[in-house]
Parts: sequence; structure tokens; C-alpha cells
Amino acid sequence: MYRTHNCGALRMEHVGQEVTLSGWVQTVRDKGFMMWIDLRDRYGVTQLLFNEEVSSKELLEAARSVGREFVIKITGKVIERSSKNDKIPTGNIEIEVSQFEILNASQTPPFTIEDESDGGDDLRMKYRYLDIRRNPVKEKLMFRSKLALETRKHLIGTDFVEIETPFLIKSTPEGARDFVVPSRMNPGQFYALPQSPQTFKQILMVGGMDKYFQIVKCFRDEDLRADRQPEFTQIDCEMAFVTQEDILNTFEGLTKHLFKTMLDMDMEDFPRMDYDEAMSRYGSDKPDIRFGMEFVELTEEAKGKGFPVFDDAEMVVGICAPGQASEYSNKDIKKLTEWMQRPQIGVKGMINVKYNADGTIKSSVDKFYDEAQLKTWLAKFDAKPGDMLLILCGETDKTRKQLNELRLEMGNRMGLRDNSVFKPLWVVDFPLLEWDEDSNRFHAMHHPFTSPKKADVERMLNGDHETMKALRADAYDLVINGVEIGGGSIRIHDRALQEKNFKLLGFTDEEAEDQFGFLMGAFEYGAPPHGGIAFGFDRLCSVMNGTHSIRDFIAFPKNNQGRDVMIDAPSKIHDEQYDELYLKSTAAEKVVE
Amino acid sequence: MYRTHNCGALRMEHVGQEVTLSGWVQTVRDKGFMMWIDLRDRYGVTQLLFNEEVSSKELLEAARSVGREFVIKITGKVIERSSKNDKIPTGNIEIEVSQFEILNASQTPPFTIEDESDGGDDLRMKYRYLDIRRNPVKEKLMFRSKLALETRKHLIGTDFVEIETPFLIKSTPEGARDFVVPSRMNPGQFYALPQSPQTFKQILMVGGMDKYFQIVKCFRDEDLRADRQPEFTQIDCEMAFVTQEDILNTFEGLTKHLFKTMLDMDMEDFPRMDYDEAMSRYGSDKPDIRFGMEFVELTEEAKGKGFPVFDDAEMVVGICAPGQASEYSNKDIKKLTEWMQRPQIGVKGMINVKYNADGTIKSSVDKFYDEAQLKTWLAKFDAKPGDMLLILCGETDKTRKQLNELRLEMGNRMGLRDNSVFKPLWVVDFPLLEWDEDSNRFHAMHHPFTSPKKADVERMLNGDHETMKALRADAYDLVINGVEIGGGSIRIHDRALQEKNFKLLGFTDEEAEDQFGFLMGAFEYGAPPHGGIAFGFDRLCSVMNGTHSIRDFIAFPKNNQGRDVMIDAPSKIHDEQYDELYLKSTAAEKVVE
Repeated sequence: MYRTHNCGALRMEHVGQEVTLSGWVQTVRDKGFMMWIDLRDRYGVTQLLFNEEVSSKELLEAARSVGREFVIKITGKVIERSSKNDKIPTGNIEIEVSQFEILNASQTPPFTIEDESDGGDDLRMKYRYLDIRRNPVKEKLMFRSKLALETRKHLIGTDFVEIETPFLIKSTPEGARDFVVPSRMNPGQFYALPQSPQTFKQILMVGGMDKYFQIVKCFRDEDLRADRQPEFTQIDCEMAFVTQEDILNTFEGLTKHLFKTMLDMDMEDFPRMDYDEAMSRYGSDKPDIRFGMEFVELTEEAKGKGFPVFDDAEMVVGICAPGQASEYSNKDIKKLTEWMQRPQIGVKGMINVKYNADGTIKSSVDKFYDEAQLKTWLAKFDAKPGDMLLILCGETDKTRKQLNELRLEMGNRMGLRDNSVFKPLWVVDFPLLEWDEDSNRFHAMHHPFTSPKKADVERMLNGDHETMKALRADAYDLVINGVEIGGGSIRIHDRALQEKNFKLLGFTDEEAEDQFGFLMGAFEYGAPPHGGIAFGFDRLCSVMNGTHSIRDFIAFPKNNQGRDVMIDAPSKIHDEQYDELYLKSTAAEKVVE
Repeated sequence: MYRTHNCGALRMEHVGQEVTLSGWVQTVRDKGFMMWIDLRDRYGVTQLLFNEEVSSKELLEAARSVGREFVIKITGKVIERSSKNDKIPTGNIEIEVSQFEILNASQTPPFTIEDESDGGDDLRMKYRYLDIRRNPVKEKLMFRSKLALETRKHLIGTDFVEIETPFLIKSTPEGARDFVVPSRMNPGQFYALPQSPQTFKQILMVGGMDKYFQIVKCFRDEDLRADRQPEFTQIDCEMAFVTQEDILNTFEGLTKHLFKTMLDMDMEDFPRMDYDEAMSRYGSDKPDIRFGMEFVELTEEAKGKGFPVFDDAEMVVGICAPGQASEYSNKDIKKLTEWMQRPQIGVKGMINVKYNADGTIKSSVDKFYDEAQLKTWLAKFDAKPGDMLLILCGETDKTRKQLNELRLEMGNRMGLRDNSVFKPLWVVDFPLLEWDEDSNRFHAMHHPFTSPKKADVERMLNGDHETMKALRADAYDLVINGVEIGGGSIRIHDRALQEKNFKLLGFTDEEAEDQFGFLMGAFEYGAPPHGGIAFGFDRLCSVMNGTHSIRDFIAFPKNNQGRDVMIDAPSKIHDEQYDELYLKSTAAEKVVE
């Protein structure tokens, strides 16, 4: 037996008991005739006392040979500490050690196993097993486990069925890029790993399993950015005989339940905002509504006054940063402008209007606008003395996107994005299709299975090209604190409408049949109305913990080159493996090119 | 709104209420002025009444247009049925329909959507969405969902943490064959899909997460037999600071909990049997102990009496089939012998001794053995009048295997393998290594990470070749009703011992380092003693339901060619996909060969 208790269990009530503990050596303090070891496991830390009077001298000698992260097992008596530590739950007691065994030695770890480690990201990933011993990582993994269980309990408790869908499926080239898996038994053919269980969950609805969910890994072979992993986890759901309203209520209920159970937080009903409104008020379809600074359009007021930059612009729009007039020197504003001019954002310039605390107004466009005019601006923003306006102009979509970045940056600088505050928002009524000028075709705003709103079905089947641009979908996103937690839609369940949608998206009839014939076939055998949603599970974990990085919620994440640096994958395979799969590598040539 | 209730909800207490239901048309009975439709959804069936007096004539006409599996929505009043149906929970009521809408039409399904369908396996797989509407399939999927939740609740309730391990890992050519995934970002390199999370769960133990589990998909690219799928699900577990005893107790507890919760069945403590005993008593490491007919060895008694077949045999061994003497004519015995002579089993011959009800003895070896001698045999079997001995002989391992098949077949014929009875058994003390004459090397009986028993460590590190054959492992299987539900072992946690094991298994130092260097590296940073187990989840589902097929517990299984016939995968991929992955197909050439 390795332990009677774990290292977080012992209290005053155990004083006098003989116990056996196993764990890792956190710290050693040696006073010669006495020695203390902090012994750590997943559950906590317990102080061990090695005392020449109780333990033998030999035992003390042996204990002296251990270093950090050695694995030891001890037996001893629980005693009350003379100097108590009220920072840890076991801080009232210590163990007077009478037996001692080294279970395994340890080399000196390459970084400290402390809450704040001195290890850089790369080192922590290579020695992930040491990193996981640290409380912040360990706790995030435990949070994730509990969040998954609570999700399952809640959904199954409300008649959902968790159904596993296959991982070896079929490659469909539109959308993101698939990871593919060569089939040995079917030469020249490949499986694909699912980007989502989309078609399978719709098939399950046709199969009558009217409330499906699954917490499931999904795969996308896309170039990686921070916070994007080639494999990621979704809470994937689908329901039959439901309207958008039913789905929003069901998953608002789930979200509230999770915040209550995990964080003991009662959430009010989630506000809803349609896509157009989100774009005009925040320049984003995932607005962070923890703070204001909403967009105010000045196009009418600002144009035609001789300032050519504004006169040429499709839109003039700005935000009012409360109390910031005195915070920004000319130099600061110059810096902020430069930050906005970086290629990632790419503004040409930025106009500012300071409404000083003394009531005076100072702007970077004083040459073109007199005080009266600027006052009409300030009034439109409902600005108070001390506030500062920051104004951009240009083509509508682009300018909104830029101003969104500025708003979020100002929110950060002003400390308005408090991570202990949670502001959920449903964004609804997304456009069905997005016209792409470059490729001269429509893209699905959500995905090709999304249904137009009931009122738009007729227009979609019979309308002209311009009509298509205006179609709205029963599509919705859940946004918390400016992060898209999930999204979904009501699906098409009618063959003719699905065929029309594929055509609009540029599929030939053959392509549509080849890739999604099974789904359209299923629609002919009594497909019920249905819809669903998927939550990004990694992201939900991180948002609920008030952090932006998903990495520490993933036990073994990959780096930005898609590599697992701990196991060193991907790696080369043997020639026999190529042969069995009827494949040849062209990589050598490509690399030399 | 599509429904106020589901089709299994309404009872006498709802009589008088107006309700809305949606579902599928199960059956239509038309009496002209009145018409009944059985409306079905996941929850049950409700009878709808279309009555000219209440519904309009037009509504009756409209309802008349529907066929089987149409999706309809109705509103009406719950009324008491005149002729009640006590076979279904909604059998006391019906709905007098006042509003009616066809939500979707259906073609005539290719097989009947009934508990006993007329659809063959291939058709059912192609139209899996129709198959899933059938109660037997639907209920199996719901059972699986609940079993997974109960597993999770129980394990997390006892401090386990569910941790997701990666799917894109590294190919290791020993063991079963990997599915591999070409990496676009790392030309010429491949990920592999995990055959199990083995190394990751051990790494988690090194990481201090001392109670890990995961219900997880695993992948093996092996030629498929019935009941084997390229992707399958495991309850995968690992614990640190445990002995074999701790693991057996923990997972015996889980198993009992699942039988109690799912089947309301209290199980007694599981018996344990060591591997050698299982082989000598049942000729199998997964004995079905629901019935007796244990092996009795006759080698001593049977040899040296002038019967050359026995004289030449390494072993003579048989079973006693109670009460079967009068059941088997000479013709029946001939047939049974032929069954045993099929290549799958391959005996040369089979000896029988009938202990007739009248006390006389008749055997197929009367020429060589007199009654007194045969009586000593019967005594050894503890045979009663009416019993029949069936005896095989030959090389020990092969003969035991053959007799195991015979025993199971006799158990089937005699109705002794009752699927409502559950007899679990721990088989323990497996050999560590298996010597393979053909390849002239050792194989790991469990896997390369399995630890020898503590008493055998020294012998393993320093013993000779013959010693290695006798090493025993802390390895164990859970068997229920002759089906292996799961297995596991205590692992090696010491670099030197792991290196020695790899060497015995024929790895060069380079191969060991290349494939498992990260794990051996981890052992140098304070690896705790640990061990684990994995249950086959698909199989657990099927055994608990008393069936042998796992297919209907899998929503979308693949056929024996590894194909999903519904979506038609695997399939060809585009040339651009080959190019992006630095691959060329050689399949065309191979196919022509």
C-alpha cells in the first residue's frame, strides 16, 4: 500500500494517527538534527518532519539524499505543528516520519514546479509532464473535466442522448482543409477526419434521435495562430422539431447552469442583438458588451465641410473614450495612431477631439471644423467634459472593423474588460450568404446546411442575384465578453432547398451529389425540421476562467507548426507503411525546390 | 412551436387538454368516415383519431394523403379511448385531431421500421437513418449514452479526472498497424491515430494526475472480422501509487456500480483465477464460468494402453457433458466431430465415452480400454449415469484451445450460456513475455510497458533466456461470460527496466529512443509507481445487453471492408490535396498488378 491518505487530507482531527503518504518532494529544509520536507501530490502539500529523536539517524541520512521532485513514501504520526501555516488546509499538522522509502529519483527539473514557473513556453511543452504538476495547469485540467461532466449531466438530464459519430469519414473539399487518412484496404482512397459531426448529427435527426449531443474532437488542417489547434473539442448539439427560439432557450439554460455549478454565478437572461445592429454599434459580430464606447456615426455631420479625408469617405464613425482627454498627450495620441497604422489594422489616420475638463475643445481637425460644429459632434456622442473622441473614416466594413480594434484596445487600456465579469450576448439573424468579390461567388456565412428564414425561402428559390445578398438565416452565435463561444443554425431539411443552396455556393450537381448525396437522400425519407449549435469547449473553459489562452486547458497541445514537441510528432514513417498505403512521398523534391 | 408533448407522454390525466404533437407516421388505418394514425417519435407512439364529425372533411382528405414515415404535426384534444391498448403507456388515450400539417413527405422506406425489420444488414447500414428509428437500435444507442454518463459520474465521483489526450500522435510500428495522417505543415512527416492513449496516460501519471480516465476513440488498421471495427471506444484509465490489488478493487467497484445502475443487478465479489489455472481448467484466458464442464486431464490414465493416438499425444484431456449420453446418436457424434474438424478448429479426431442411464458404458475406444479402465476415467470426471465424455488429445496448447471451442459449443447446445446471467472473473498473473518460435523473438503478452511482478524484477534484469519465459506480470483481464471486457497492468516506471524490456522485445537502442524516448525521459523526473486498465466500451455495452454484436451500439459502424456505406467513405481525394501533402498515389499500378 502506497498511502492511507493523500497529501491534502490531514487535519487536526487526525493528530495521533499513524499514516502513510506518497508524493513528490516540493522543498527540503535541513537544520541538521531536524529536517522538513514539503510533500506534494495532486491534492495538496503536507509537511514532513524528520527528527533525530524520533526517526533514526540513518533515516535522517537517507532523507537527506533526496532532491526536488523525488518520489517518496513515508509512514509516521500526525502531530500538531508548533508554528502553524494558515495558507494551506494541512497547515495545522505535520508528520513525524518513522519510515521512509525513495520510490523513484528525479533529475533536477529544467524549471521550477511552482505556481509562477521560470520555464518558457517551449520548455514547458517539451516537459509537459512537469508542467502538469504545477497548480495552474493541473487546476485547469480538473476544471475542464468537471465542466464536461456538468455539461453531460445537464443535457442528458433534459433528454439529450450522447451519440458518438465516426472519426473516419469522407473528405469534402469546401470549407476548411481536411486532415486525410489513407485507407490500406481501399487503395487510392482516403478517409477524412471530421471538421465537425455536422452531417452525421443531421442524419441522427432524420433517424429520430431528436436531442443529440456529443463532446467531441474535431480537426482542421489550417495554418495555426495562437489560440488555434489542429484538433479541438466541441460541445456539439442538434435538435429536431425546434425553432431558433427553442435552441436559444435550451443552450442559454445550459450556459446558465454551467456558470452556476462551476462558478456559483447567477446569470440574467441573455440579451439578443441582430447581426446588423452588432455591426453598426460595435463593428463586430462578437461585441464585448462589458463596456460601452459604442460607435457613433458622424458621416452626415462631418462631410461637406471641406475636410477632404472625410469628404471622400463612405463613413465617418468614432467612439467616445470617457475621461481620457487629459490622459492622452499629443505624443500618446501619435503612438496610438501608429498602433492603429500597423498592417494588422491598417488605418491611414485617426482624428481626435478632446473635450477638456474646463469645457474647451481641442481637435486634430480644428482647421476644418469650428467649435459649434465640434459641439454637435460631442452632443451626438453624449460626451462630457474630460472625454475624448477618436474618429475613423473610410469604406464602411473596413472602417468598422478598424474601429472595433480601437474600441477593444481602449477598453483594455481603461481597465473596462474585467475578466471576473461575464456578459453573454446572442447575436442573431446573420446573413445567409456572403458575396465574395475576389472569387465572384457566394460563400455560406455559417455553413451550406443553414436554412434561410422561413419568410425568405420563397425569395431564395425564385429570387434574382441581388435578392440572394439580402437573405437572412436562422443563424445565431453565443458571444461572451467578446469571445464567440458557439454558433449554430436551423438547417435545411428539404431536398430542393438544399440543392438550390449548393448551386448558389457554386457546387455543380455532380459535386453536390458526390459529397452530400447521402444527406439529400435522407431528406427524402421523412426528415424533420431541425437545427443545432456547437460550443467551442476549449474556449468556453478559457472564457469561464477569465483567460485568453486555451493551451493550458489542453493536456497536450501542439505548437504553431502543428508539432507535439514532447513526443516529437509528426515524424517519418517506414517505407513499408508507404507501400501498404499505395503512396509515395514527393517531399524530398519539394523541400529542395 | 412543433409540440407541447412528445409521443410517449400523454396519459388519462391529460384527457380534455389540447395538445400539439409532431412525429412520424407509423401506421394508417382508414375506415372512411374515421381514420387512425399511429404517430411515433423517440419517446413512444400516440394514436391520432381523424373523425369527420370533429375534424373537417378537408382535414380528413389531407390526412389521407400521408404514407408511412411522413413527418406530420397535429393539434387536437386528448380523449379517452373506447378500446384501450395496455401494451403501450399511451394506450388509454387518443388525440381527436383538429389541425393537421405535413412537415415533410417520405418515400416508401426500403425496409419496415419495426422491432423486427425485414431489412438485411447491408440495406440497414446504407439507410442507417431509417434503421436508427427502430426501437432495438434506438434503445441500444440510448443505453450506451447512459452507460457512458454513469461511468463518468462514478469515476469523477471517486476523484478521477477525465483528460483528453491527443488524436494526432506518433506512429510506432510495433503492435497493431497504425492509421497515419500526412502532415501538410511538416512535409514527408505523418501523425498516427492512437491505438490507445497508453503513453499519454503514463505521462499524466508522471505529471501527478494520479487518477486519470477517458472514454475515448481508438484506432487500429487491422483486417476486420465481425465484431471488430477500425475505430472503437475504450474506457481508458490509469492510477498512480497503486498496486494491482487497488486497481482490481477500483474497477470491480465500477463494474458493480454499472450493473446496479443500469440493470438493477447486485453482483457478488468477482472471483479471481490465475492465467495458468484458467488455461488448464478451461483452455482459455477468458473462460465462460456460467457453466461447468471443466477440463479433466486423462494423460496418465489413457497413455500406455496400446491406443497409438493417445500414446503419441502430449496431452489427453476431455469434458463431461451431463445428461448428453442419450442425446447423441452415432450420427450426431459424427456431425459434432466434423464440426470440430473444420479448419477453424482442426482436430483430427474426437473420442467419446457414453455412461448410459442404465449404467452401461459405451465408447469409441472400447477396443483399447476395458470397462474397468473406462470407469476410472468416469470417476475422474465425477460422471453420473447419462453423462457423456468428449475427449481430445495432442499438443497441450493446441488441444486446450480446441477443447475450449468444444466446451463453449456444448454449453450453447445445452442452453447453459444464459445471457441474463452475468459471471465476471478476474484472470491474473499473465506471463510477461511470449516466445514466438516463428519470428524467434519475444512478444509482450500485454504490451511493452507492463511490469514484471516485483519478485521477478531481479530475474528479469539479470536472468538468462529461459528465465525470461517464466516471468510473470502484474497483468489482469476482466472477463464476463467468456468475453474479455478489459485488461491492464502495473507499468514499468524505471528507465533501466523499461530499456531491458525493449531489448528483450527486439528493439535496438535507437528504435527504443526514437519511439519512446520521451517516456523513458519522463521516468527520470520522478515517475511514480502506476498502473491502469482499459475496458472495451462497445463490448461492455453488448455484454450487458446479452448480445454478441457490437454493431448496433455504434451509431455509424463500418463494414468488413472498413467502408461507411451510407456516406460512401473512404473516397478519392483531389490532386491538389495530394500535392499539398507531398504525396503521390501508386494505387493505379498496384491495382493492375
